[in-house]
Amino acid sequence: MDYSRRVEKLQAILRRQKMDALLVTQPENRRYLSGYTGSDHGIGETSGVLLVPARGGIFLLTDFRYRIQAEQDVPWATVLLYPRGLLLLLPRLLEDLGIRKLAFESHYMLHSTAAMLAQALAKVGITTTPLKGLVEKMRLIKDEAEIDCIRRSVQLNEEVFGEVFPSIQPGQTEIEIALAIETTMRRKGAEQPSFSSIVASADRSALPHAVPGGLPVEKNRPLTIDMGLVLNGYCSDMTRTFVPGRADARYLELHRLVRRAQLAGMQAIRAGVKAGEVDRAARAVIAGAGYGDAFGHALGHGVGLAVHEDPRLSSLNHKQLRAGMVVTVEPGVYIAGWGGIRLENMVVVREEGCENLNSDTTWLDL
Amino acid sequence: MDYSRRVEKLQAILRRQKMDALLVTQPENRRYLSGYTGSDHGIGETSGVLLVPARGGIFLLTDFRYRIQAEQDVPWATVLLYPRGLLLLLPRLLEDLGIRKLAFESHYMLHSTAAMLAQALAKVGITTTPLKGLVEKMRLIKDEAEIDCIRRSVQLNEEVFGEVFPSIQPGQTEIEIALAIETTMRRKGAEQPSFSSIVASADRSALPHAVPGGLPVEKNRPLTIDMGLVLNGYCSDMTRTFVPGRADARYLELHRLVRRAQLAGMQAIRAGVKAGEVDRAARAVIAGAGYGDAFGHALGHGVGLAVHEDPRLSSLNHKQLRAGMVVTVEPGVYIAGWGGIRLENMVVVREEGCENLNSDTTWLDL
Repeated sequence: MDYSRRVEKLQAILRRQKMDALLVTQPENRRYLSGYTGSDHGIGETSGVLLVPARGGIFLLTDFRYRIQAEQDVPWATVLLYPRGLLLLLPRLLEDLGIRKLAFESHYMLHSTAAMLAQALAKVGITTTPLKGLVEKMRLIKDEAEIDCIRRSVQLNEEVFGEVFPSIQPGQTEIEIALAIETTMRRKGAEQPSFSSIVASADRSALPHAVPGGLPVEKNRPLTIDMGLVLNGYCSDMTRTFVPGRADARYLELHRLVRRAQLAGMQAIRAGVKAGEVDRAARAVIAGAGYGDAFGHALGHGVGLAVHEDPRLSSLNHKQLRAGMVVTVEPGVYIAGWGGIRLENMVVVREEGCENLNSDTTWLDL
Repeated sequence: MDYSRRVEKLQAILRRQKMDALLVTQPENRRYLSGYTGSDHGIGETSGVLLVPARGGIFLLTDFRYRIQAEQDVPWATVLLYPRGLLLLLPRLLEDLGIRKLAFESHYMLHSTAAMLAQALAKVGITTTPLKGLVEKMRLIKDEAEIDCIRRSVQLNEEVFGEVFPSIQPGQTEIEIALAIETTMRRKGAEQPSFSSIVASADRSALPHAVPGGLPVEKNRPLTIDMGLVLNGYCSDMTRTFVPGRADARYLELHRLVRRAQLAGMQAIRAGVKAGEVDRAARAVIAGAGYGDAFGHALGHGVGLAVHEDPRLSSLNHKQLRAGMVVTVEPGVYIAGWGGIRLENMVVVREEGCENLNSDTTWLDL
């Protein structure tokens, strides 16, 4: 990955915005700009923050526990340790660098932290300015090296599904299947799942975000598996619904309906189309069959270093899609007491259409 | 768990602070007060927020995806959905409830979210007040039902270690062992690991937060395993270091040193002692042997619904320990190029001492 080009691009933006530096706290932004793989224990316990001055080299500020990892991952940054916390190190460092106006990522800094930071820096005459989504905006458009990482993540995810699928039997618990999926991911070299796998049988498949439990997979009822992994930092995300045993006529009708909606969504995607239009194209298919109320979430979301990122394929998003964006297309119908069907692929937005990163197999099309 | 007693206690605090309600966004606080098990995709994508008015019933505000889970988990709350986001639902709801002064958890709300919330509520004459750690303070002291949950979490964690330990062989990769640990956790009924297991061999054991990799476990070199799981919401956290093969004299000396430091720390714990004193008691043992610089982190941290919570056993923490707190005691020495040794137990602070939740086995004492 070409980290120096990314940093230079950000530095040009900072100079245009009359900022002297940006403090990067968002973990995927930190990785995008530097390659640092440190993982945080939630927002309250960071493994380090990146200081990007508007000119010159970058700094990775971390604590004792992450020193060796930081130095190994980011030899192109100056690694500094804060033995007594960032708020004691930062004022002096910024003064030394002549930084008077510090921007921070207001969408990834706690309200309380921002208040303490502003107070500590005000004492030495430095102002803080909340900025939102600066690096995320850069991350929206993936370059071909990134798309290649995502493609490999999707392929590995499909390989995992393909390996686990033949072993799925009614009577197994959802959690056993989730475990088999996550074990296979790790064995095949994934860094980690990109989210907790969803395995939901029968009625429970009507919960879009079901947590796998100790209940058995029911024969002849819908089974939804939503799974993804992280490979070289990049995420995949895929949902398949099928019926262990024999699908009844209603299932077949609804599965075909959801699949038609998915294809309508994919066919609507190309550079220049508004995100909301894509959502509407898929939703119209489901609404046209009288199931509009059963599809209560947006059609899709961006995927990259984060498994959920912009752009959202939501009826509320009026922005145009651009070539190089990577999004999921995942319509669903959810019927309480009966179950749900969701089908999710990942695609790359291209000038003339979209590139499906998943290899749809015919048995899924019934 | 006695959720209604907890809510009433919080409501009394809110009334004393002249607040009309608290918006609970921190996931463990939400679970502590209501039993809601919804899991968030990071701070930016919540599975719901809890509104606790200073008087009357509580509200769980969530979206379509979590409705069924919310209603199942929290039948004692009014579950409301925000189809177009919390910021559209909240002003009307607060007006209906006559709430004029809303407190929010400033340590678990993004700076940008807090700004938007303040703006949306100001329009209807409602003020927002940042509050920090109100519920965390209640969570500091565990009742016996909670301690029992933690004890079972620790026991299951030890069972998992005991099952994986005999199969560990030089030549296996760190990641294979981590996978065996996490698979065994899930098979034995853990909800999930409480953090990504650390398995670090040889030089890599000198990184306190090493990420398991594809490198093999080396014979006759230190191997550190730091692992924990979540059971009924409550976390465990345990570190063991040992030598696959034959430990040399230096290893034995340092292992005994770390163990002596751990025992000194445990012996210093009882209600009324300052947290910093416990850290110093353990640190003195290591410093006395000339390895003070090799122990660069605090002695321990609280554990409960979160795997890292207050109180910190750090030299900087001058607060007194109180009966019912649960903390780790985990001294270590880390020597670049050689490796590291860390030993971590969990204990309950009692009036007259501490209760060790781990069953130390003699082979660990060499």
